[in-house]
Amino acid sequence: MATSGRLRRNVTDVRVTAINDGIRSERPDTLATEEPMEIRVGGPGQDARAVAVTMRTPGADYELAVGFLFTEGLIAPGDVRRVAYCDDLGDEEQRYNVVTVTLDRPFDHDRLHRNFYATSSCGICGKAALDDVEVRCSPVADGPVVCADVIVSLPERLRSKQPVFDRTGGLHAAGLFTPEGELVTLREDVGRHNAVDKVIGEQVLAGAVPLEARVLQVSGRASFEIVQKAAVAGIPIVSAVSAPSSLAVEAGERFNMTIVGFVRDGRCNVYTRPERVAS
Amino acid sequence: MATSGRLRRNVTDVRVTAINDGIRSERPDTLATEEPMEIRVGGPGQDARAVAVTMRTPGADYELAVGFLFTEGLIAPGDVRRVAYCDDLGDEEQRYNVVTVTLDRPFDHDRLHRNFYATSSCGICGKAALDDVEVRCSPVADGPVVCADVIVSLPERLRSKQPVFDRTGGLHAAGLFTPEGELVTLREDVGRHNAVDKVIGEQVLAGAVPLEARVLQVSGRASFEIVQKAAVAGIPIVSAVSAPSSLAVEAGERFNMTIVGFVRDGRCNVYTRPERVAS
Repeated sequence: MATSGRLRRNVTDVRVTAINDGIRSERPDTLATEEPMEIRVGGPGQDARAVAVTMRTPGADYELAVGFLFTEGLIAPGDVRRVAYCDDLGDEEQRYNVVTVTLDRPFDHDRLHRNFYATSSCGICGKAALDDVEVRCSPVADGPVVCADVIVSLPERLRSKQPVFDRTGGLHAAGLFTPEGELVTLREDVGRHNAVDKVIGEQVLAGAVPLEARVLQVSGRASFEIVQKAAVAGIPIVSAVSAPSSLAVEAGERFNMTIVGFVRDGRCNVYTRPERVAS
Repeated sequence: MATSGRLRRNVTDVRVTAINDGIRSERPDTLATEEPMEIRVGGPGQDARAVAVTMRTPGADYELAVGFLFTEGLIAPGDVRRVAYCDDLGDEEQRYNVVTVTLDRPFDHDRLHRNFYATSSCGICGKAALDDVEVRCSPVADGPVVCADVIVSLPERLRSKQPVFDRTGGLHAAGLFTPEGELVTLREDVGRHNAVDKVIGEQVLAGAVPLEARVLQVSGRASFEIVQKAAVAGIPIVSAVSAPSSLAVEAGERFNMTIVGFVRDGRCNVYTRPERVAS
């Protein structure tokens, strides 16, 4: 169906003054590109309207748009008819920063505003945030079981396949793995939520959701939002190189997910549903 | 004026299954707390309405609310009359997740929606994002000059004063330092933008903005949004342990700021205005 979006420059060349033990030198350096991207949504015969702007690293833009809309509960996997850059914009630079997702059904733009779990005086707390996610998804299925040896190998498997990190030294990554530790898909981004949305969006476009036999490995910490996105996609195991937050663990508990953190040096901590990790 | 907000539990105790070389053990663990916080704003005789929800680590909530509103260009430092938790909410847990900022002037809630640089078909790109920030702030003043030795010492100075990181092993921090490397204020949060907003909000409430003789050190990468927030606060030097993004460096260039990255092992890279770093 949709292609992956035009390949844009995901790195930017700059000059830098390097200072090492008081010695200055000028040299070229390469940075991860960060550019805003606007996501527009519309249905048949309906004008597409902007629903979000995210600061992202160009590349896999269609996946990012679809993944974002899906994991935020705004569309179902089967809703997508077409994904395209904006044809109206004359400027090359701007054109590739606007992605329009056309649905098979009308999109309720007003629902966007009603949707927030935080708009009324009924209060706001972690439990309300979890209740809100529960509206969008059921607890994930029980399987699979993954060897602890596989889990602890994932950060290095992820890291070894990060082309932009290799050139810039600073970028988040998310990778989807099989229970045997085989890499299914990997995406990089300056924003860690974006990296997760790109991975999930790619799977939505491939018709592979729910991702019941997959492990999501992220390069940094596991926040509530990352676990929420994985829950909506039906991913049973989320593994993070660094710490999970309290609400990430609560979300894992609520949605029958296995949350693994501090995956490093042959060790890991399993915070919820440890029966999915065999040792 | 306003106090710092009630001290809430910023860590959460959990049980964890630790797996080390295939050996399982159950033990207690401590996580950084993550809870949503709603920020409400209103003027004299005007109902306060929600303008944002952020997932944050409880603590310094008033600073976070004020810092967010200020760095996003929604209020000026002198606008704040009162900051308070929501008295209406019966539930203890929820009450401390809603902060109301009352201004000395009416707040234009409609402006929130007009304010986005991304809502029209005039396009969206890094330059448009920078133009948008330019509406809110002037380039920062030229001084001060900081020794490279001081810059490279900042990550360790920051790290040594992170109480919640010490207990949880995973939390972002932002610290404001004098040009001599003395710590002025430090805040931690699961969200790196929140840590910066807390630091800047504390200075807004203290009447210390613009922060013309300060260095902002962050624990992770430097994104566009972090540089934008520092620009609005008038901070001339932003230093990051990890990489800056392309747009962070462009923002530094545009706003006469010094952007330093990869501050580690006695080294650093200066991306813009290197004349502020003496070696």
